[in-house]
Amino acid sequence: MGPRAQIIDGKKLAEALYRELRLKMQGLEGNPPPALALVCVGEHPESRIYLRQKRKAAESLGIRIQPELLPAEAGREEIFATIDRLNMDSAVHGILVQSPLPRRSLEVEVFNRVAAEKDVDGFGALNLGKLCQGDFSGFWPCTPAGVHRILRSTGIPIQGKHAVILGRSLIVGKPLGLILLQRGPWADATVSLGHSKSQNLAEFTRQADILVSAMGQPARIKASMLKPGAIVIDVGLTRVPDPGQASGHRLQGDVDFDEVAPVASFLTPVPGGVGPMTIAELMANTLKAYERQTGWVFPFGGT
Amino acid sequence: MGPRAQIIDGKKLAEALYRELRLKMQGLEGNPPPALALVCVGEHPESRIYLRQKRKAAESLGIRIQPELLPAEAGREEIFATIDRLNMDSAVHGILVQSPLPRRSLEVEVFNRVAAEKDVDGFGALNLGKLCQGDFSGFWPCTPAGVHRILRSTGIPIQGKHAVILGRSLIVGKPLGLILLQRGPWADATVSLGHSKSQNLAEFTRQADILVSAMGQPARIKASMLKPGAIVIDVGLTRVPDPGQASGHRLQGDVDFDEVAPVASFLTPVPGGVGPMTIAELMANTLKAYERQTGWVFPFGGT
Repeated sequence: MGPRAQIIDGKKLAEALYRELRLKMQGLEGNPPPALALVCVGEHPESRIYLRQKRKAAESLGIRIQPELLPAEAGREEIFATIDRLNMDSAVHGILVQSPLPRRSLEVEVFNRVAAEKDVDGFGALNLGKLCQGDFSGFWPCTPAGVHRILRSTGIPIQGKHAVILGRSLIVGKPLGLILLQRGPWADATVSLGHSKSQNLAEFTRQADILVSAMGQPARIKASMLKPGAIVIDVGLTRVPDPGQASGHRLQGDVDFDEVAPVASFLTPVPGGVGPMTIAELMANTLKAYERQTGWVFPFGGT
Repeated sequence: MGPRAQIIDGKKLAEALYRELRLKMQGLEGNPPPALALVCVGEHPESRIYLRQKRKAAESLGIRIQPELLPAEAGREEIFATIDRLNMDSAVHGILVQSPLPRRSLEVEVFNRVAAEKDVDGFGALNLGKLCQGDFSGFWPCTPAGVHRILRSTGIPIQGKHAVILGRSLIVGKPLGLILLQRGPWADATVSLGHSKSQNLAEFTRQADILVSAMGQPARIKASMLKPGAIVIDVGLTRVPDPGQASGHRLQGDVDFDEVAPVASFLTPVPGGVGPMTIAELMANTLKAYERQTGWVFPFGGT
């Protein structure tokens, strides 16, 4: 049985967004560029990979990247001092704190220290609250924004559909739920949120018109757990051992791709699905932050 | 068939909370009392009823009520000026803006104008965002807080249960969903949120271990829509014509009480269920706000 699902090419979709952002940026000549500060605490290997990907994306657009590298031992006060300095610096428009922090218990406080108008990751309380209020003046977190753009790209209406989200993180599950619950033909979904403590997870996934998995459980989603024709978005990303690779490992999503492809109507791969969209949405948020702070208006509306 | 469900007496549960709050207040002698400003714009008849109920509850505890009555024509600037004055007034600890405002489009802006530490209604972006983050330093909106206290009072564990919430308002549905999604044996529910645009609502309600209806659709929830043994919480409150009443109307919940009582395990009546709890939670939030702002510490922990 060959794959029936349309495989969503996240790289291509991200490239379309970059094309839009690049055209916008071309009008800027002479003005100081948008700048994004990336605060990294410690040497988490995956953080370094993400940092490199973000830098590459930003440079291709002409967004200035300002890395702020702090030692793993940096405490609350040292991290706050860095963020305060960036908050005050009018040449910095977006501030991203790379998670996970070595001390995870500090994360919410640190997210909340970022000035709301520079909080391009959208994890601060004020931006999350605006999302809850349906107030569009805030920033949507980048991964849910990317998932929503992927859903829009399918052309399938979301309104009235049952979206099942697995994982209730601040980064993905909760903000995505709030986005899909907004009012409008582009949202208006019935939303179910399941997680590690949910009983009978498969009962929920089998009802999903749209299934978004963000659990970090490699290949957990099997064909038998799906309603035929579901849209399946895989946000999971786990490094699993793979002797066939030179590195000895590969990245595996939450979805058992080969099993699920013949059953789903649309499916995102890992890698090359949601990941590239997340980085592109971060760049879009950075341009939005630049507009809000400088009064500059980019041509042809929002992206 | 007689009623099988245990009928939850919201008045009695509220009275237990008032008893706790009253004991706390008794230690205050000599100190200036907690004060709650109630901002009313226009003459919405139901707002006046709520205002009276809140005043009565506050006075029974020794909380000072400061009504701030604005004409229905009051615009953004006039409402903002009132709130700004109350924000600055150190003798006022809680500020509640009675909704609906005559101009509903102003509501979110007005909620966000209230200083976060005085936002005892918890509808401001910062408090909603904290709820989303699982940060307990904010205020929970009063109706969801009351619903959660009702659920705790049943002694039935919430963890892993399927909670179906009907209605996605800022006042009830969305914050309640976020509360039930928190981590801990007192939460950890699988949460589904349905609303007016949901397809096949009964398919969802029939799966609910806990059903919370906040739609404002009188007697919409029938026995056939329930899983036998479900906990049913009725947040609906609609004025329906009733020639049998002197006033010509009565208050009707979302649940068809007589039909549902033999099927549910627990059921809240309307009136006398969630309503009294909402007002009691407002008083609890006002004491919490007083503690945060004055440094005063009430005895025997949180309520």
